[in-house]
Amino acid sequence: MTLSKTLLLLTMTILPLQTPAQIQTTLLPLPAKLTLDAGQLPLTTAFTVATPHFHDARLNAAILRTLHDLNRHVATPDAPTAISTEILTTPTATLLVDVTGPGQPIQSIDESESYTLTITPTAATLHAATTVGAMRGLTTLEQLVQTDSTHAFFTAIHIEDTPRFRWRGLHIDAGRHFIPVEVIKRNLDGMAAVKLNVFHWHLSEDQGFRVESKLFPRLTALGSDGLFYTQNQVRDIVAYAYARGIRVVPEFDMPGHTRAWFVGYPDLASGPGPYTIRREFGIDDAAIDPTRDSTYKFLDAFIGEMAGLFPDPYFHVGGDESNGKQWKANPRIVTFMRSHNLKDTDALQVYFNQRLLPIVQKYKKHMVGWDEVLHPGLPKDVVIQSWRGTRALVESTTLGYQGILSQPYYLDGMKSSKENYLADPIPIDTTLTPAQQAFILGGEACMWAEHVNAITIDSRIWPRTAAIAERFWSPQASTTDVDDMYRRLDAQSIRLEAVGLTHLSHEAVALRRFLSTDNPQALAPLTTFASALEPISFGERYRQQHTNQFTPLNSLVDAIRPDPPSRHEIARLTRLFLTAPTLNGPDSIQARAALETYYKAWLAASPAIQSTLTTSPALNAALPRARQLATLSTIALEAIHSLSTSTPPPTGWKQQSLATLEAAKKPSALVRLTFIAPLTDLINAVP
Amino acid sequence: MTLSKTLLLLTMTILPLQTPAQIQTTLLPLPAKLTLDAGQLPLTTAFTVATPHFHDARLNAAILRTLHDLNRHVATPDAPTAISTEILTTPTATLLVDVTGPGQPIQSIDESESYTLTITPTAATLHAATTVGAMRGLTTLEQLVQTDSTHAFFTAIHIEDTPRFRWRGLHIDAGRHFIPVEVIKRNLDGMAAVKLNVFHWHLSEDQGFRVESKLFPRLTALGSDGLFYTQNQVRDIVAYAYARGIRVVPEFDMPGHTRAWFVGYPDLASGPGPYTIRREFGIDDAAIDPTRDSTYKFLDAFIGEMAGLFPDPYFHVGGDESNGKQWKANPRIVTFMRSHNLKDTDALQVYFNQRLLPIVQKYKKHMVGWDEVLHPGLPKDVVIQSWRGTRALVESTTLGYQGILSQPYYLDGMKSSKENYLADPIPIDTTLTPAQQAFILGGEACMWAEHVNAITIDSRIWPRTAAIAERFWSPQASTTDVDDMYRRLDAQSIRLEAVGLTHLSHEAVALRRFLSTDNPQALAPLTTFASALEPISFGERYRQQHTNQFTPLNSLVDAIRPDPPSRHEIARLTRLFLTAPTLNGPDSIQARAALETYYKAWLAASPAIQSTLTTSPALNAALPRARQLATLSTIALEAIHSLSTSTPPPTGWKQQSLATLEAAKKPSALVRLTFIAPLTDLINAVP
Repeated sequence: MTLSKTLLLLTMTILPLQTPAQIQTTLLPLPAKLTLDAGQLPLTTAFTVATPHFHDARLNAAILRTLHDLNRHVATPDAPTAISTEILTTPTATLLVDVTGPGQPIQSIDESESYTLTITPTAATLHAATTVGAMRGLTTLEQLVQTDSTHAFFTAIHIEDTPRFRWRGLHIDAGRHFIPVEVIKRNLDGMAAVKLNVFHWHLSEDQGFRVESKLFPRLTALGSDGLFYTQNQVRDIVAYAYARGIRVVPEFDMPGHTRAWFVGYPDLASGPGPYTIRREFGIDDAAIDPTRDSTYKFLDAFIGEMAGLFPDPYFHVGGDESNGKQWKANPRIVTFMRSHNLKDTDALQVYFNQRLLPIVQKYKKHMVGWDEVLHPGLPKDVVIQSWRGTRALVESTTLGYQGILSQPYYLDGMKSSKENYLADPIPIDTTLTPAQQAFILGGEACMWAEHVNAITIDSRIWPRTAAIAERFWSPQASTTDVDDMYRRLDAQSIRLEAVGLTHLSHEAVALRRFLSTDNPQALAPLTTFASALEPISFGERYRQQHTNQFTPLNSLVDAIRPDPPSRHEIARLTRLFLTAPTLNGPDSIQARAALETYYKAWLAASPAIQSTLTTSPALNAALPRARQLATLSTIALEAIHSLSTSTPPPTGWKQQSLATLEAAKKPSALVRLTFIAPLTDLINAVP
Repeated sequence: MTLSKTLLLLTMTILPLQTPAQIQTTLLPLPAKLTLDAGQLPLTTAFTVATPHFHDARLNAAILRTLHDLNRHVATPDAPTAISTEILTTPTATLLVDVTGPGQPIQSIDESESYTLTITPTAATLHAATTVGAMRGLTTLEQLVQTDSTHAFFTAIHIEDTPRFRWRGLHIDAGRHFIPVEVIKRNLDGMAAVKLNVFHWHLSEDQGFRVESKLFPRLTALGSDGLFYTQNQVRDIVAYAYARGIRVVPEFDMPGHTRAWFVGYPDLASGPGPYTIRREFGIDDAAIDPTRDSTYKFLDAFIGEMAGLFPDPYFHVGGDESNGKQWKANPRIVTFMRSHNLKDTDALQVYFNQRLLPIVQKYKKHMVGWDEVLHPGLPKDVVIQSWRGTRALVESTTLGYQGILSQPYYLDGMKSSKENYLADPIPIDTTLTPAQQAFILGGEACMWAEHVNAITIDSRIWPRTAAIAERFWSPQASTTDVDDMYRRLDAQSIRLEAVGLTHLSHEAVALRRFLSTDNPQALAPLTTFASALEPISFGERYRQQHTNQFTPLNSLVDAIRPDPPSRHEIARLTRLFLTAPTLNGPDSIQARAALETYYKAWLAASPAIQSTLTTSPALNAALPRARQLATLSTIALEAIHSLSTSTPPPTGWKQQSLATLEAAKKPSALVRLTFIAPLTDLINAVP
């Protein structure tokens, strides 16, 4: 049997046991309440849509996007068929979008996003108080399409839905590597597809200042390498996000992470200058001088200009990782600290924040900052974004500050969707009172950009961020089944590609760059190799490779997927198999066969993999990993054989196998094998 | 043996016989003169580049793009290595870019594009008279990188290169479907990678007017569905093209193909109006009224505005497919024709052109038009673009007009690269005198957009346009080996993907949309099916599907590749096999094995293919083709067996097989099997 046939069979037969509701839908995020009804509503080109009460341009545009999406299920080669793009205002249609009103002109943190969606065999009705609520319901409708050989249809269903958290964000660092407008836009489409509602746009860093300022043109003229957003582009993106029910919160990180500002405006800095754009990563000493009035005059003008460009009432000032070294090295600043009774540089940062806050408030913005802005006496109006994790969030919340959780959702950590998913802003065993819990606004997935660029970023954000989005949207009680989350994520990943994201196509594109032929068969060994690999974390790569802004991001590690399917699947199958290795029940037999298929495929492809790796120095570094893949696949097959036939392995096998496994944990080529943990369990299970 | 292993083996062993020069390089287009020398120049991060004489911003930017490209071969996981982006002005460096001067400020049709490139084991030197010539040489340098397990290097070589034709274009129709800025830009990068130098931008159609006019804002306000280029975007694209040594020739098609103009400006039309944007395709009756002075006043102002926006000295006025019906239906126009002694509507179009030409010339532009603008008395300054093919080109050239050949290069015809490649603007058996031949400026690949959109267009343009680009650049005598062209095209296709084109990744993206899982194995049967399919031609699809502007372009036919590898490979292998089917020489055995691998893979995947097709109505229409694939694969294997073992087939086998083949030629699902012709030969060869 060929590899593809075997794996197809596997796909078709080894799905986890499912409840009827799970079999019927692949909704992600799961709605708050869902009831499946009998029957189906056909989806054909005769589909019509009407807004019987309120409609506006934003609602109509959202409906048109949904019709465009539905069209991909009704296209056939027989006719030039498409669903009509006319939006009726009649009281009946296949889909009634019944909206009370537009919501707020600047989308508020308290904007209603609730909706109810009822599909019967004759019609669908979507009720929502606001246009944003209707958008959430339309996204749900798109996810409900199913097809068989002759029809596309919706299963009859009743959904009442509302988000668990008000602030469900994706943070993109456009400072360390610039991320172009079209990449931002398709990520906004991805966010809308999973009901995220805050785009946190990190716009300045030591490595680059990314927004045009008319008042201070040298910020980008000298601090951006020519890579920045014009104000028109910013307005375009803010409008694009608003059209999708997404708020845009800008961040200008200060007083640290500001070296790129100082290239054009050295007087802002605490050190002597001159400054150049920083190319290294990690904490830099450069910091804004908090002791001069001219600093606050600059910031007042700058924040005023940006406040006009970004309509959202929240304004992020960063505040993280300012190490105080430049402050301590400047005698004038040291004198200032003494004369103002500021005992250390932390106290000086508090002083800075105390002068910054009224500027932000003057422009009618709420200030948001990372953990470090928290200090005694900080007004309760400031929102604390926790990058230090849940403990920091609990601390600020207990003190009465509103908080946003980030750290468990750092996408550059290359954790699995499972790990991201199971981290809850308010864990089930929280010690916070309900009143304190109410201060937790939600969370954000964070895409820091040391190791991503325009080409790779989609594959680092998606589909993992969809799992995080479900954590933020869906009821805590219904988000415990990791296997089912992966099943739905698998379907959602396809839908995310359909909005234009490149997270799935990227791997083949990146792997083909190592080849000198577009023959699909030449790619096969690399694809098979990649299926067993995952990138190491940001920190590991940073330490091992000493990356900087010029490091080409086109190594093998940049090509492969974080959390590839093999990672969860082998863990799940090994768990299933080990519950009864010698039993002949269908679950056990299928789990064993599926595991063997993985390891046999890797073993069979091994000569071709190793031969391909020797064709370029960029690949050659991964040769030890390829050899480990072959050896460990053999060990896995030996373990499965031993367990399933109750045949003891040769003397010393276990010890030697565990030693081989241990060796494979060592750093190599910035990539690691996905199945180390379940294979350890498997070997340990052998008597 | 698994499918992937078998096919890998095939890739490695069944390459065509090669001359040493072909083994060494994958240059495309082939240079005019090439000498391979002994030794290699290593490519490491120590690579330096210098411009010892002239340099300017355009040259430096071109060099930086090349360094960026070279970096993908030196990236390793061990260090943050990158080639320095500093461009020296020293007299020595790994690469000297020795350029005489910048060339013309507006790139001319006579711009020198010649260069010489010499690579020795110690250094590379590129000489060119102009920055554009240097760009062509830098592209060549990028194509010369090779790698082994530990090194990247250039083989020592001496190249003297110059283009055969001055006008080497790609025409993109942005009228029938709008093509966004970023898609245009990556296609300009693709053009530069294969040394094309004219982007012919088709900007107005019955289905949409695509450029902002400040003087006539209703052209886009009412005639574009909101899908148009702003003037800033046009300037951006013109600059992007200039930076890559590409001229931009705009086309505003008139007097026909103008319905979209009339939505906002009905007074321009010959019919009574009101007008709406046309959604159907094919020739429309709407035409500009050539009898009123107000028409020419409008065109004078409009062309004046556009002449300022597009700096190129050539301006394309279309002129094709005006059927005269609206003219004949308008009594006022009929009267005008009589009073001006214009005997028919052709004569009226001549009149129109005679009044249009001085307007175009007033703005210092040469007029370009399609075949129909040619008429007695037309000034010799007008360039004729032939869409009616070589005979029309010969006719206009004989009359002394400069000409550009297009028809054999219509990409929507879905012809193979081979067919496109073998069509020569001046065939070897031409009857034109050398003086007449000199009037032939070159040719253009034409991407008409009835059946392409932003998602699919790359895959319809590339890699076939690279083969056409070689036809236009390389000496006629060195462009006869089709097998070798395919070998180099295969490598070039990868390089085109590296500049950002999506022609290779598109198929998997489009096929995954039919699925509900991103599991790579679920895609495998569809990919195997797609490898045996090619799209039918524009005309066939238009007639069978009755497409219009709203037809969703996401059917199976839109996913599959024009001219997929199986098309040429099976033809080549069948030819090899049939020359000596019973011999046991290595060529014959390998050809037979490779053929069997194709047909066995299709047969083996057949149940999975058919099962996948039944999961959606969009795919289900292709079920008959899938059944034919299985049946014909069986027939092919039977024929190979019969021929190679000299075993006669059962009685009636041949007749029945040919009948099955005949049935498979009938239209079905807008796709056809790639191997019909060689399989016919194979069956006919069976005694």
